[in-house]
Amino acid sequence: KVRNHSFYPLTFLRLSVVSPAERIRFILGEEDDGPPPPQLFTELDELLAVDGHEMEWKETARWIKFEEKVEKGGERWSKPHVATLSLHSLMELKRCIEKGTIMLDLEASSLQQVVEIITDNQIETGQLNRDLREKVMYTLLRKHRHQTKKSNLRSLADIGKSVSSASRLFSNQENGSPTTAHRNFTSNSLNDFSDKPEKDQLRNKFMKKLPRDAEASNVLVGEVDFLETSFVAFVRLQQAVMLGALTEVPVPTRFLFVLLGPKGKAKSYREIGRAIATLMSDEVFHDIAYKAKDRQDLLAGIEEFLEEVIVLPPGEWDPNIRIEPPKTLPSPDKRKNMYAGLEAPQMNGDAPHDDGGGGGHQVGEELQRTKRFCGGLVLDIKRKLPFFASDFYDALHIQSLSAILFIYLGTVTNAITFGGLLGDATENMQGVLESFLGTALTGAVFCLLAGQPLTILSSTGPVLVFERLLFNFSKDNDFNYLEFRLWIGLWSAFLCLVLVATDASFLVQYFTRFTEEGFSALISFIFIYDAFKKMIKLAHHDPINSDYDPNLITQYDCRCLPGTIRTVFTNVPVNATWASLTRQQCVTYGGELVGEACGYVPDIALMSLILFFGTYICSMALKKFKTSRFFPTKVRKLISDFAIILTILLFCGVDALVGVETPKLIVPSEFKPTSPLRGWFVPPFGGNPWWVYLAALLPALLVTILIFMDQQITAVIVNRKEHKLKKGAGYHLDLFWVAILMIVCSFMGLPWYVAATVISIAHIDSLKMETETSAPGEQPKFLGVREQRVTGIFVFLLTGLSVFMAPILKFIPMPVLYGVFLYMGVASLNGVQFMDRLMLLLMPAKHQPDLIYLRHVPQRRIHLFTFLQVVCLALLWILKSTVAAIIFPVMILALVAVRKAMDYVFSQHDLGYLDDVIPEKDKKKKEDEKKKKHKKKGSIDSEMEFSEYPYHDNVPSIKISMETMEHEPMLGNKSEDTCSKRHF
Amino acid sequence: KVRNHSFYPLTFLRLSVVSPAERIRFILGEEDDGPPPPQLFTELDELLAVDGHEMEWKETARWIKFEEKVEKGGERWSKPHVATLSLHSLMELKRCIEKGTIMLDLEASSLQQVVEIITDNQIETGQLNRDLREKVMYTLLRKHRHQTKKSNLRSLADIGKSVSSASRLFSNQENGSPTTAHRNFTSNSLNDFSDKPEKDQLRNKFMKKLPRDAEASNVLVGEVDFLETSFVAFVRLQQAVMLGALTEVPVPTRFLFVLLGPKGKAKSYREIGRAIATLMSDEVFHDIAYKAKDRQDLLAGIEEFLEEVIVLPPGEWDPNIRIEPPKTLPSPDKRKNMYAGLEAPQMNGDAPHDDGGGGGHQVGEELQRTKRFCGGLVLDIKRKLPFFASDFYDALHIQSLSAILFIYLGTVTNAITFGGLLGDATENMQGVLESFLGTALTGAVFCLLAGQPLTILSSTGPVLVFERLLFNFSKDNDFNYLEFRLWIGLWSAFLCLVLVATDASFLVQYFTRFTEEGFSALISFIFIYDAFKKMIKLAHHDPINSDYDPNLITQYDCRCLPGTIRTVFTNVPVNATWASLTRQQCVTYGGELVGEACGYVPDIALMSLILFFGTYICSMALKKFKTSRFFPTKVRKLISDFAIILTILLFCGVDALVGVETPKLIVPSEFKPTSPLRGWFVPPFGGNPWWVYLAALLPALLVTILIFMDQQITAVIVNRKEHKLKKGAGYHLDLFWVAILMIVCSFMGLPWYVAATVISIAHIDSLKMETETSAPGEQPKFLGVREQRVTGIFVFLLTGLSVFMAPILKFIPMPVLYGVFLYMGVASLNGVQFMDRLMLLLMPAKHQPDLIYLRHVPQRRIHLFTFLQVVCLALLWILKSTVAAIIFPVMILALVAVRKAMDYVFSQHDLGYLDDVIPEKDKKKKEDEKKKKHKKKGSIDSEMEFSEYPYHDNVPSIKISMETMEHEPMLGNKSEDTCSKRHF
Repeated sequence: KVRNHSFYPLTFLRLSVVSPAERIRFILGEEDDGPPPPQLFTELDELLAVDGHEMEWKETARWIKFEEKVEKGGERWSKPHVATLSLHSLMELKRCIEKGTIMLDLEASSLQQVVEIITDNQIETGQLNRDLREKVMYTLLRKHRHQTKKSNLRSLADIGKSVSSASRLFSNQENGSPTTAHRNFTSNSLNDFSDKPEKDQLRNKFMKKLPRDAEASNVLVGEVDFLETSFVAFVRLQQAVMLGALTEVPVPTRFLFVLLGPKGKAKSYREIGRAIATLMSDEVFHDIAYKAKDRQDLLAGIEEFLEEVIVLPPGEWDPNIRIEPPKTLPSPDKRKNMYAGLEAPQMNGDAPHDDGGGGGHQVGEELQRTKRFCGGLVLDIKRKLPFFASDFYDALHIQSLSAILFIYLGTVTNAITFGGLLGDATENMQGVLESFLGTALTGAVFCLLAGQPLTILSSTGPVLVFERLLFNFSKDNDFNYLEFRLWIGLWSAFLCLVLVATDASFLVQYFTRFTEEGFSALISFIFIYDAFKKMIKLAHHDPINSDYDPNLITQYDCRCLPGTIRTVFTNVPVNATWASLTRQQCVTYGGELVGEACGYVPDIALMSLILFFGTYICSMALKKFKTSRFFPTKVRKLISDFAIILTILLFCGVDALVGVETPKLIVPSEFKPTSPLRGWFVPPFGGNPWWVYLAALLPALLVTILIFMDQQITAVIVNRKEHKLKKGAGYHLDLFWVAILMIVCSFMGLPWYVAATVISIAHIDSLKMETETSAPGEQPKFLGVREQRVTGIFVFLLTGLSVFMAPILKFIPMPVLYGVFLYMGVASLNGVQFMDRLMLLLMPAKHQPDLIYLRHVPQRRIHLFTFLQVVCLALLWILKSTVAAIIFPVMILALVAVRKAMDYVFSQHDLGYLDDVIPEKDKKKKEDEKKKKHKKKGSIDSEMEFSEYPYHDNVPSIKISMETMEHEPMLGNKSEDTCSKRHF
Repeated sequence: KVRNHSFYPLTFLRLSVVSPAERIRFILGEEDDGPPPPQLFTELDELLAVDGHEMEWKETARWIKFEEKVEKGGERWSKPHVATLSLHSLMELKRCIEKGTIMLDLEASSLQQVVEIITDNQIETGQLNRDLREKVMYTLLRKHRHQTKKSNLRSLADIGKSVSSASRLFSNQENGSPTTAHRNFTSNSLNDFSDKPEKDQLRNKFMKKLPRDAEASNVLVGEVDFLETSFVAFVRLQQAVMLGALTEVPVPTRFLFVLLGPKGKAKSYREIGRAIATLMSDEVFHDIAYKAKDRQDLLAGIEEFLEEVIVLPPGEWDPNIRIEPPKTLPSPDKRKNMYAGLEAPQMNGDAPHDDGGGGGHQVGEELQRTKRFCGGLVLDIKRKLPFFASDFYDALHIQSLSAILFIYLGTVTNAITFGGLLGDATENMQGVLESFLGTALTGAVFCLLAGQPLTILSSTGPVLVFERLLFNFSKDNDFNYLEFRLWIGLWSAFLCLVLVATDASFLVQYFTRFTEEGFSALISFIFIYDAFKKMIKLAHHDPINSDYDPNLITQYDCRCLPGTIRTVFTNVPVNATWASLTRQQCVTYGGELVGEACGYVPDIALMSLILFFGTYICSMALKKFKTSRFFPTKVRKLISDFAIILTILLFCGVDALVGVETPKLIVPSEFKPTSPLRGWFVPPFGGNPWWVYLAALLPALLVTILIFMDQQITAVIVNRKEHKLKKGAGYHLDLFWVAILMIVCSFMGLPWYVAATVISIAHIDSLKMETETSAPGEQPKFLGVREQRVTGIFVFLLTGLSVFMAPILKFIPMPVLYGVFLYMGVASLNGVQFMDRLMLLLMPAKHQPDLIYLRHVPQRRIHLFTFLQVVCLALLWILKSTVAAIIFPVMILALVAVRKAMDYVFSQHDLGYLDDVIPEKDKKKKEDEKKKKHKKKGSIDSEMEFSEYPYHDNVPSIKISMETMEHEPMLGNKSEDTCSKRHF
C-alpha cells in the first residue's frame, strides 16, 4: 500500500513519482548478504580563521550516537547530548541535497582527488564559475584542527605552566592575555593538508569508543568571500579511505558533505552541517545513506526522518538546555523492519497481559516436566556440563575477589550466629565448630557440582527451629538425638531424591512475583529485625548506667564479698583475698558482687551502636559512590565493588583506635566436636528402638517440604530472568545435591543446609557485569552476572580455613558484622516492586514516579493489592515468631493459594501489571515497542490498549477495531496497514 | 524587512500574499489599550462510548502550560509534561484550519447556539450534507464526563469499599470484574447536555491553579460513523461564556475547536486535538488567537510556531518518555516583541562580561557616593522609612516562628560560647551574663532600627582575640581594663560615625564575589572547625577508658584519700569520712583521688558523639525532605522549615531517654555582673592616667577597621542580588547603629557586636519565600526573603529572656547545639561557587555539571583561579590561628588587592565568568536570552560570543560581523535584521 500524503505540503510529494515510503521500503528491504553497514563517526568541521588571516578547518562537533560539541571558551568537549535541531535547518538541508552535487560510490584515494572531482562536477553542471576552481580547491584543502582530549597528566602539567606563567606575570606585570599562548589544539603543518594521519590522531584515546571497523563521515561547512551561490556536495566513496588528517580519529572516511557559501551566514551553514551530521548518526538514515542509489533515495531518507521526528513546542522547552541521552531508546529495528517488510519480532507472546495468573517468570525448559524418570536431572546435567570449564575461567576478574571477601564475611557471620544458636538449642550437640565445618563442606561441594553455583547454602531459620524442637522431643522421650536426627535426615533426603526423580521442581512455576517478593521481603525483614535484635541484646548485656554522676565517682565501685548464702563449692585460692578476685572468679567461687558499678559496663553499648550504624551508613554511601560525579569511573567502580570490605576495615580501625572492649568475632580454634559426648560419625543403629527408624518418616515429611520450599524459592529468585543468566538453571540438580549433602551431614552430625535468599542475592549483586559504554552518552547496559563456581568454592574454603584464622578474625567487632547484616537486608529490598508499592502509599498521586502499572491500574487497586500482601506478610511474621515456625515453609505454599484467590478480586489486566516477574524497565520498553508498532498505524502517541480497557467492553457498535482503519482514509492517513494486519 | 522563505516548501508561502511574519508583526504589534489576554485553560474531550451504545465526550487531557493526560487504566491525571507532537499532526492541523469553518467573534450564549451556527455554516458552504445536521448536532451536544480529582478522604473510602467488595467477592465467589462498578468519573445527567455548571465542576479543586479571569478553550475530537468527510470548526466567542458542564472547571469558554471525522482514525484526530491544544497553551499563538482577524492570521500563527519548534531526532529520543517541564523557560516576550516591533529589554547592560574586574554585585543607589555630609545615611533612612510599618505586618507567617526558634538557638549557643570564652579571656570581667545581655540589647535595637534587619549581630572571633590581647595588656600595665576599653570603644564609635558621615561604605563595591566568597567560606570553615574542636575538647574532658575490662570491674574504683602533702585548708567536715566525700568535695578539701577509674568518665564522650553527628545528619535529612516524594507539599515544607527545631527536640528526647549525663546548656539564672568587681556602668574617668584616654585612639583605629570589615562584608553578603531583597539595603544606617550600640556597650562593659555572617545567612535561608506553583508542572519561583524586623527582635528578646528560661533550656545537651553549628557551617557553604569549583578539581571533565563558566572558560584557568583562592584562604586561616589574628580583618582587605592583581593573570572574559555575584542560574538564563536574540538572526543554536572570544582577536579579514549578514541572502536566510541591528 502506498502512504497517503494528502495532508503534506506539496513539495513533500512532488519530488518523484515513487513515494518516499516505497523507496525506503525498497532500499531497506534489499536482500543483502554482506555485513551490516559499519558504525559511523561523524565530524563537523567549520572554516574559521586562526591567529591571523589564514583560514583553517576547525572541528566543532562530533557524533557517534549523540552530539558532542566543542565548548568554544571552555576548550573542551561538551557532554554528549541529544541534538536539538530546527525544522528550518532540516528544510534547508533537504534543499541542499536537492540541488547539490551528489556522488555515490565515488572512487578516490585522497582528499585532493575527491575535491577535484566534485569541483569539476559543479563547474560542468554550471553551478560554479570556472574561475573559482582554484579558490574552492584551496579552501577545501586547508589544514584541519581537531579538539583532542589531553591526558590528565598533561592537563596537570598545563596547570603548572599556568601557575608559573601567572607568577611570571605577577613579577613582570606584563599586561597581556596569556590564554592565547597555550592552546590545546593539535594543528597540522602550517602550509598544506597532510596526507598521512598525524601523531595526535593516532594517539587519540577516543578511538576506544569506536568499533574496529568504524568509518567516518566528514561534514565541512564554511563561509567564503569569493562565492555568490552555495557549493554543496554529498559524496559516498566506493571504498572507505583514510584521508590523512581529515578526521580526529584514524578511521577511514566513507562520507563527505561539503557546504561552502557566501559570507554572512556561517551560523545557518553550521546548522545545516549539524542537521546532516545528526542524520548520519541516525541508524535508519545511516543505512539508507549506505544503500542509496541516487539523490531521490537520500531525499526519501530525509522524508522518513521528518516523519519520525519529535516536535517540542517552543513555549514549553528551552532549546539551550542540552538534553541528556535517555536511559533507553526505542530500537531502530522497528523503524527499519517496517519499511524492509520484515516480520517484526513477535512480542505479543510474552506481553505482560498474557499470563493469566500463572507464573510470571518464563517457564523455560528447565522447569518443563519430562515425564521420564530423572528426566529433569539428566537434562540439568546435560545443560550445565558444557559450561563446566568456563565456570572456572569466567571467574578471572578483580570483581570476584571482592565478591569472595564480601560473601565470605557474610557466611562466616551466619555460621557463627547459627552455630551459637544451634549450640544453645541442642546443648552443644551441634555447635559453632559443626556449623563451620558443615557450611564449608556443603557449600564447597554444592558450588562445585550443583546446577546453580551462584546459590549460597546456609543454615536457615526454619531448620533451626526444627532442630530445637527435635532436640527437646528426643530429650523428653530419651531418644538418642543424633541417631534420631540421622534417620530423619535419611528419610528426608530419600524423599527429596524422589522429588528430583519425578521432576517435582516443575511446581516452582506457580511461584509468581507475589510469592517470590513476599518471601524475599519477609526474609529481608527478618535480616533487618535480627540485626537490630542482636544490637539490643548486646546493649542489654553491657548496659549503660543512666544515673552515673561523674562527681559521685568516689561512691561507685563493685567489690567481691564472700557469698552470704554458704553454698560455696571451693574456697578462695590460698594466696588471694575476696577483694582481689576478678568478676568471673568471684562468681565462680560463689562470692557476691556488691556495688553500684556492678551492673553496668561503660562505653561498650554506645561504641557498638556507633560501629553498627557507622558500618551501615558507610557501606550504603560507598556502594552509591558509583553514581557520584567524583573521580574517574574505574576508581568509583572499584570503591563501589569493595564497599563492604572497605567499610569493615575502616570500622575495625575505628574500633581498634578507640580501644573499647567491644564484643569481637570469635571463631573456634581447635578442630574437634563442640560436645565431648559425640564424635565425627553418627552410628545409624543402636541408640534407639527399631520403630523409631520408621517413625522418623513423619518428621521427615515436614523437613522435606521445608527443604524443598526454602531451596526452590531461593533458586527461583536467583534464576530470575532479570539477572540475565546465560548458563541456565538446574533446579533438579540443585535439589539432588542438597539431598546428598543432607545424608552426609546427617551421618556426620552436622546441621542441614539449604539455599539462603539474602546472601545469594548479595552474591549475585556483587558479580553483576555492565558494558563499558561504547558511544558517549549511551547508558551502560546490564550484561548479566559473572556465572562461575570459583567465588562460591573459595568462600567456603575460606570459611573452613577460618578455624585457623582466628587470630586475624578476632579483631572484627560483632556490631560491624551486624551492620553488614543490616546492609544486606536493606540492599536485598532494592528493586522489589512490593517495596515501591509500599512507598506509593505515602506519596500524593502527583509526586509518584511514572511507573508502568500506575499508568494502567487504578491506584486504589494497587493499594488493595499492596494491602493484601502486607496482611499476608504480617500473618507470616506472626507465625514465624511463634512455635508454629516449623510449619513456616508450608505457609509459603499458602501464599500461592492467596495469589490464586486474587484472580477473583482483581482483573487479569490489573494482575498482569502488578504480578509479573518482568522487571519495570523491560516492561516499559516492551510497551514502548508495542506502542511504536501501533504508532505506525496512525499517529504518534498511540494508546491501543483501549480495546483491553474494561471501559470499552461490550461496545460492539463503536469499538475501535484495527480492521476498520483500512477503509476511507480521510485526514492524511498514513496507516501502514500491511503492518497493522500482521500484528493483530 | 520581509523574511526570506526561499527554502520553505511552497505551501508555506503560497497561503497569502502577505508573508506570515508580517502578519504576525501586524497582529502582535497592534496598539492595545485593553488588558492582556487572560490565561487559557484548554481541555481535550474525545467522543467515546461508555457502558453501552451511548456515546459521550470524555475528557482525556488538559493544558494550562504543560500537558496533563488522563491515564486510561490508572484513572488518574498523569504528571504535567512537555507535549511532544509529531510533525504530521501539526501539518494536519494546518490543513484543518485551512479548510474548516473559522468563526471569530461569534456571538452566542449557549453551546446549543454555537453548535447550530457552525453546523449551518458547514451546510451553507457545502461541506456538510443537510441530512446530517441533526446527527452532528446530537453528537456535539452529548454529555461530557470529566476526570476530577477526589479528595484523599474519598480515595480512602474507595479503598475501604474495594476491600469490602473484595471480601464480599471472596465469600460469594462471584467471578466478575468489580472495577467496572466503581468509577470516579463525574457524569452529567444521562439524557442531555446540562446548561448549568455541575456540582463537581464547582467543587473542583483544580480551580485554584487558575487565575480568577481565566478562560477556557475546549477541543472536541471524535470519530462518528455517519460522516464521510471531516467536520472542522474553530470558534472564538465574542464574549467568554459559561457553556454549562462543558469544561472541567467553571470558567467561561472563549475558544472551541471541533473535529468530527469518519470512523477508524480516532488516534489521528486525537493527535490533531493535542496539536491545537498545545498551540492554544503556547503564549505567542494564544495572543494571536485572541487577536486574529481571519483564517490567515491563524495560519500565520501556526507558521510562526513551526518556525520556533524544537526537533528531536527519532533515533536519539523515545517519544514515550514524558519530558518533565524544564526548570526555566525562555521568556515568550522575546518571541512576541520581535514581531511586535517593540524594543527587546536591553540585557547587555548587565551582561556578565561588562564588569571589568570591578564589583560583581550591582552598585545600586545604596552605595553611590553622595559627596554630602551624612548624605548616604539620610538616603538610607528615606529609603527604609516607608517600609517600617510593613516590616512588622510582613512577618505574619508560620515561617517566621520557625525562623525565630532556629535563629534563637543559634544566637543563644553563640552567646554562651563567646560568653564563656570572653569570661575566660578577661577573668570574668565580661562573662556569660554580659554576653547574653549585650546580645539581647544590641540585637534587638539593631533589628528594630537598622537598615537591614535581616542581619544578626553577634560576637565574632576577631573581636574576641582583640579583647584577650587588650585585657592582658591592661593587666601588664596596670590599666583599668574596663575604662581603657570604654575609651577605645568611644574612639572607635567616633571613627565609625565619621565613616558613616563620609559615605565611606561606598568602598564596599570593591568586594567582588572572590572576596565575599573567600570571606564567607572561611567563616563557614571556622564554624565547622569549631564544632569539631568543641567535640574533641568534650571528649578530652570526659575520656574513654580504652583499657577497661568488664571482668576486672572489681579492681576499678576511685577513692578519696587524705592528701599526702599536708596543705589542707579546712578539715573534713565532722560527720564525714574521707571515703564518703564526693569527687569535688575531695578536691576541695585537699584529698587525693586514687584509683584506676578516676581519670575516666563512661559513656559521655560516645553519647556526645552520637548526639553531635545524629543532630547534623538528621537536620540535613529533614531539610532535604522538602524535595522528597513523600507526603503532600505542605507537610514537607513544614517539616523542612522546622527541621532544626524538630531535630533538636528529637535528640533532646534521645538524650533524656538514654539518661547519660551529657554536658547541658547552662544559662545564667541570676541577673548580676559575672564579676563582683564591676557594676553595670563603667565610669569614664578616674581609673587610668589622662594620656591613656588619647592613646586609646591607636587601638581604636584597628578596632574600627575590624568592625567596618566584619560588618560590611556580611552586609554585602546579606544584600546580595540573588536574595531578591525588595526593601533595599542600608549600609550607612547599619554602621551608624553599630557605632551607637558600641558606645552603649562600652559604657555598660558589654562585649562589642557586629554582623555575624553564618547566622545571618541562616536567618535569610529560613525566611525564603517561593511561589505556590500556579500551572501544573511549573517550577516554584524564588520570590525573595520575608523582609521584616519581627523575627530579629523576637530572637533577641527571647535571648534576653533566656536568663529566666534556664529550667527549660538546661535539657538541651551541648553536643546537639554543636551539631547545629556544624549544620549551619555546612549549609552556608551551599551554593558558594568556590565550593563548586573545589569539587570540580575531583571530577573528571566528562562528569562535570554543565556550569556556565565551564562552557566558556578553559578548565585549567578555572583550576588556577580556584588554586589561588585556596592559597589565599589557607594563608588567612594560618593567620587567624596565630596571635596575628587581630589584623585578620585588615587581611581581608588584602583579598581585594589579590583580586585586583588577578586582572593581570586572567583575561577579563574569564574573570567575567568566574568572579561575579550573579548566581549560576540567572546567568545561564541571561545567556540563553542573549542567544535567543541572536537566534533570530540566523539559526537555532547560535554562538555569537565568537566575537568576544580571544581566538578571534585580530582577525579583521574573516571576522564574522553582524553587518555582513544583511547582504546576499543565500540559503533560506530568515535573518531578522531589524533586530540584529538593534542589539549590536
